[in-house]
Amino acid sequence: MNAPAAIKIAAFDSPLEALAKLLAHELAQTEIEISSHMVSAVGLIPDVAHHLVDAGGKRLRPLLTLAAAKICGKVSPAAIKLSAAVEFIHSATLLHDDVVDGSGMRRGLRTANLIWGDKASVLVGDFLFARAFNMMVATGSMQILDILAATSSTIAEGEVLQLASASRGDIGRETYDKIISAKTAALFAAAAQSGAICAGASDEYVAAFCEYGQELGMAFQLSDDALDYGGLTQELGKSVGDDFREGKPTLPMIIAIERASDAEYGFWQMVLGRKHEEEDLQTAMQYIRGCGAIEATLQEATTRANCAKQALNVLPNSEIKDCLIELADYVVNRVS
Amino acid sequence: MNAPAAIKIAAFDSPLEALAKLLAHELAQTEIEISSHMVSAVGLIPDVAHHLVDAGGKRLRPLLTLAAAKICGKVSPAAIKLSAAVEFIHSATLLHDDVVDGSGMRRGLRTANLIWGDKASVLVGDFLFARAFNMMVATGSMQILDILAATSSTIAEGEVLQLASASRGDIGRETYDKIISAKTAALFAAAAQSGAICAGASDEYVAAFCEYGQELGMAFQLSDDALDYGGLTQELGKSVGDDFREGKPTLPMIIAIERASDAEYGFWQMVLGRKHEEEDLQTAMQYIRGCGAIEATLQEATTRANCAKQALNVLPNSEIKDCLIELADYVVNRVS
Repeated sequence: MNAPAAIKIAAFDSPLEALAKLLAHELAQTEIEISSHMVSAVGLIPDVAHHLVDAGGKRLRPLLTLAAAKICGKVSPAAIKLSAAVEFIHSATLLHDDVVDGSGMRRGLRTANLIWGDKASVLVGDFLFARAFNMMVATGSMQILDILAATSSTIAEGEVLQLASASRGDIGRETYDKIISAKTAALFAAAAQSGAICAGASDEYVAAFCEYGQELGMAFQLSDDALDYGGLTQELGKSVGDDFREGKPTLPMIIAIERASDAEYGFWQMVLGRKHEEEDLQTAMQYIRGCGAIEATLQEATTRANCAKQALNVLPNSEIKDCLIELADYVVNRVS
Repeated sequence: MNAPAAIKIAAFDSPLEALAKLLAHELAQTEIEISSHMVSAVGLIPDVAHHLVDAGGKRLRPLLTLAAAKICGKVSPAAIKLSAAVEFIHSATLLHDDVVDGSGMRRGLRTANLIWGDKASVLVGDFLFARAFNMMVATGSMQILDILAATSSTIAEGEVLQLASASRGDIGRETYDKIISAKTAALFAAAAQSGAICAGASDEYVAAFCEYGQELGMAFQLSDDALDYGGLTQELGKSVGDDFREGKPTLPMIIAIERASDAEYGFWQMVLGRKHEEEDLQTAMQYIRGCGAIEATLQEATTRANCAKQALNVLPNSEIKDCLIELADYVVNRVS
């Protein structure tokens, strides 16, 4: 008996919590791997890294790696290392993102750049990224290194494309798709795909996990971008509009511009290309929510989630597979 | 005949120029490799990357890789890729350094962060770093990936240690040595060592190149830190004191504090730990230059350069080896 008998999945668990329970033993090893690689004689590094990595992260990406490996046969020590490396790459991009976006809050805590400054965030991000490669080298798989190195380039390209698109509302859906595919979905895809590779899966299974990760990542980011404008049920008091303030054109705004009346179009022309003011946000919210752009964005997310689920069809049935299917719906329907 | 007959090394060439001439054929391939990996559909990436990578870089690190490979037998396609990867890692750290230091000028040009902003510099730095790993994967050598991944972690640790030491003058020689060993010498060592590995060199030769690179890197950084306070022959009009302005405690300042009179010590206590003002720089320069700290720093650099030369003793004689020997003296005696 490998699975601890005591684990029970409660009806009210989210699919992510259920997945974490099913993979509790493996995830615990991933956490040890993560902690052991944040160690450094330079005290500022573990300070910054622990603040980010310990605080409220849901370990979504490492769980994809572990789930794929488990479904495909076994979670080897290499898969554990890989799952930790994926979280390090994610953490490094978060540190740099917060500097680039000038963010002050993440997961309900002050951001590292606010506490330790932009300089520390840039350099500790570099450290985590380099450490991710250390861990990947330790997996001994050149194929996995190849995938993750290419993915890391793609993420950076996506981030630069997003930066170059800032304050341009007319980027269109194609560029938007490119940005979110590169900055978000690529790492989801690599995490799932390389978990399968670690377990020696067939090309068919590897491709299935790659597609699942890619589509799940798209659904996740689309949903995130809808939530940034309050989602379907805008909670009072919840911080909304960060993307607007940062001049990031996301799908809700792109759709609102597509659907704009002449008067509304004039507003978008005016606000795009200049610093977005707080009073502009109220108008932007009204136009975005009024034209059904949130619903349309979530519809797009649902389409992607369905593609993710479909990709799993080739796999044998299992509890973990069920969780991954529910996870696809969950990332679309979550409220935060 | 492999070597082009037309290459002549003039008596007034620097050892670096002489090395570039001896390795002209290989260096040309490195340049092609560099250019081809800066290509991206996201236009901002080649803009920023070319600005940095094309402009005045002396290709010192790639030349170490090529020289080591050549001396050890052959410069394979893998060695060419590796030499380009090393330059990409160096370029990525320069982009991030300039953001962290708030620098406005590099190699006589405006820095990328001044032209395109800190955000672009952070993200394009990430891109170059990821691309470096793409290229290293293409070498197919897990040993080289291991060395360069560990070196990248070390560089980031050195940068963070330097940041944590900023505005602290009392860091002492040991911490200073750790900083410059990590942020500068480690990449010199990895560049030379892995060039030898690429050529299938013996452990003895690999160790010799590792030590040569390490000691050359220390000599290079010590000399750089002496030059920042004007070197032996302070040129009028040359920008000096950047390290002081940025609160970076380097060996000239550390020695000046060691040798300070009571009155001088009071000055150092006063300026350390607060933002360094322009008028403080004049006093600091006077104390540093007056106590012989520049000479002492360059003496330390000379010692390191001698160790570098000694490391090459095990190698057979060749024109390239002669250049490497002269290069060690050159990095200490250069005036800019």
